[in-house]
Amino acid sequence: MELEAKRNHDPDLNDWASIAWTILCNLRDQSPLVQCITNYVSMDLMANTLLSAGASPAMIHSIEEIPDFTPHVRALCINVGTLSPNWLPAMKAAAELITKSGKPWVLDPVAAGASGFRLKACLELVGLKPNVIRGNASEIIALSKASLGVTKGVDSSHESIDAIDAAKSLAQASGAIVAVSGAVDIVTDGNRVVGAHNGVPMMQKITATGCAVTALIAAFVAVEPSNALEATASALSIFGIAGELGMDIAKGPASLRTHLIDSLHGLDQAAVFSRIKITLL
Amino acid sequence: MELEAKRNHDPDLNDWASIAWTILCNLRDQSPLVQCITNYVSMDLMANTLLSAGASPAMIHSIEEIPDFTPHVRALCINVGTLSPNWLPAMKAAAELITKSGKPWVLDPVAAGASGFRLKACLELVGLKPNVIRGNASEIIALSKASLGVTKGVDSSHESIDAIDAAKSLAQASGAIVAVSGAVDIVTDGNRVVGAHNGVPMMQKITATGCAVTALIAAFVAVEPSNALEATASALSIFGIAGELGMDIAKGPASLRTHLIDSLHGLDQAAVFSRIKITLL
Amino acid sequence: MELEAKRNHDPDLNDWASIAWTILCNLRDQSPLVQCITNYVSMDLMANTLLSAGASPAMIHSIEEIPDFTPHVRALCINVGTLSPNWLPAMKAAAELITKSGKPWVLDPVAAGASGFRLKACLELVGLKPNVIRGNASEIIALSKASLGVTKGVDSSHESIDAIDAAKSLAQASGAIVAVSGAVDIVTDGNRVVGAHNGVPMMQKITATGCAVTALIAAFVAVEPSNALEATASALSIFGIAGELGMDIAKGPASLRTHLIDSLHGLDQAAVFSRIKITLL
Repeated sequence: MELEAKRNHDPDLNDWASIAWTILCNLRDQSPLVQCITNYVSMDLMANTLLSAGASPAMIHSIEEIPDFTPHVRALCINVGTLSPNWLPAMKAAAELITKSGKPWVLDPVAAGASGFRLKACLELVGLKPNVIRGNASEIIALSKASLGVTKGVDSSHESIDAIDAAKSLAQASGAIVAVSGAVDIVTDGNRVVGAHNGVPMMQKITATGCAVTALIAAFVAVEPSNALEATASALSIFGIAGELGMDIAKGPASLRTHLIDSLHGLDQAAVFSRIKITLL
Repeated sequence: MELEAKRNHDPDLNDWASIAWTILCNLRDQSPLVQCITNYVSMDLMANTLLSAGASPAMIHSIEEIPDFTPHVRALCINVGTLSPNWLPAMKAAAELITKSGKPWVLDPVAAGASGFRLKACLELVGLKPNVIRGNASEIIALSKASLGVTKGVDSSHESIDAIDAAKSLAQASGAIVAVSGAVDIVTDGNRVVGAHNGVPMMQKITATGCAVTALIAAFVAVEPSNALEATASALSIFGIAGELGMDIAKGPASLRTHLIDSLHGLDQAAVFSRIKITLL
Repeated sequence: MELEAKRNHDPDLNDWASIAWTILCNLRDQSPLVQCITNYVSMDLMANTLLSAGASPAMIHSIEEIPDFTPHVRALCINVGTLSPNWLPAMKAAAELITKSGKPWVLDPVAAGASGFRLKACLELVGLKPNVIRGNASEIIALSKASLGVTKGVDSSHESIDAIDAAKSLAQASGAIVAVSGAVDIVTDGNRVVGAHNGVPMMQKITATGCAVTALIAAFVAVEPSNALEATASALSIFGIAGELGMDIAKGPASLRTHLIDSLHGLDQAAVFSRIKITLL
């Protein structure tokens, strides 16, 4: 399928299904190596999400290893969830190195507005030109306005739909694709805005699902770097579809987590085509 | 329900059911932000326990963030499981700040007697006036006697019932509610002693269940700070009931973990009233 | 059973079943305290693997605690997955101390060839005389050749069978039992080579299963230190059998993880005797 051709008009649902399915197939086929410098809480779910999708995760965070290791990865995911000052230099070094090598990286600005230290770190990382930024509404608003106090811990106190303007501004200012998770996931390049409508509310009752989908975006962008908006929206919907399938048999958040990962691993074309819902907003 | 009124007599089982259920409902309603400075092993289960109970967890541990972030949380959970010297100052700073702001914090002195470094750190934290201390029998005995070698790793080599005197002494000396997990969970303010009899033995075969219930106590105390003994016993029994319900369909420790979290999320009044067992000892 | 007697001839399948079952029974009976200095990703699964097998895990990594704590453990597991320079001195101190006390330790050289820093650290650890080294083929080849670039992240780009010569060389040079995980798990003392044929491919789609089985080896060697090759092959097959049993009801990698741990906890003699497959290669 020629993603470039599809890009020049507004894809309909069927186009989106074939875009998402193609990227997932390429991901499974290529098994891209994805480096994650992420928070302690998310490492397990993030690695398992990447493995179940077909990628090869590597949680390597020491600055001593960046020069040798990062040039060999296909994409990088940086997540500031449990940030401390001694991790930040490695994040920056890895971001700079992967950008120099022409490969993509994705930023997850967890709880961006929770402290001055964290906001400053996030803004510095945004300055290093991530290809994609994914957060919840409160995080994207905090980043866009560069202001504290917008976030309540790591959970959003805003709806994603309220963050469209902030997302567009951030995308325009940073040059990144910006994604806002929520009841509807918003994805924008600062101009176009698409909504990915898959997923179930209970996914927010599982810690690190947001972190995990950011890593999945990194894997999708790894195999489709020149169509980062399409890759991002596809990753969000694919993860959401896995959640929907998981929800069919889940009895609560912990079994949903299990079934979501199982579903992501086994996801087939029929499920993607019958369930995907990505629209122009 | 008026918890104060119930406090002036010895609650019976039915009173305890209504105390525990009320606190859980308030927790679900208020979704308190709970900061956890905890060990690496427990972060996933602790965050998922808090989410499934209705709280909003935030694992933020850097001293740079404490002044901005900690004043906004409703309760703090400090756990020394994978303690290192560079984490201790942030633990102390957060404990001091939350105490100053009149909100509660809970200490989990994991493996308190495993080393001189760890025992000293735990005693310093006890000196910062936690509202609740929860450990296993060996940990509480080590803290109470301020002595090494009582603990064998992180698992207890004592029964909770053997630690009643140590728990009372520690409660009197520290001003904290002291909880001792075990076949029967003991809770004391140094004077009254209650036993929470819920739970199943296999919960001890899941790593970090002790850590997770300490965080749940923090969430319960967050919404009921003036009745910390009641909140603590309630959290222990609620977690135990979730374990009992999970055990009904579990095939081993890993599926028990899944079902426990599912059950905690879905716990209803009927289960609480029919299963809770908290008694005066 | 007299393992020594069996050691003087080549055990057949039935001998191996009784060796593995005996060690597992001793492990469940003795509940050895196993210290793990390991990566952040694996801590949860590693602790739960040890608990479900009957051991008592303790994730204690600070150099301040090594002198007090390490002398009390029965075995030590060191894993460099998320290595940083400040963890290395504690790894070395613990390895030296446990060797001095005559108890075994096991090394997991995760992604040994991913960077010069990591390879140097792994070689230094090998120099501290681990009783067992377990890695995937790429890691063992990197260690054996002391060369970079052999590993692609943390997943192997070689088959275990390709690493037999490298494993024998490493075993001879280091004095350690060397195990190579793969479709067939290889175990060698530099002279004898046995293959453990249990397990299912989907186990590689669960993060940290390799790390977890290394910890299980540490627990097996803890109760059978004088027969480290037998203990290592037994641990690999027992973990593999738990995976096979789990696979019977799994729907994907996440449910396999759950069922694997459940199966390890409930593993009985009949399953071990009917399924174990360890052969001389």
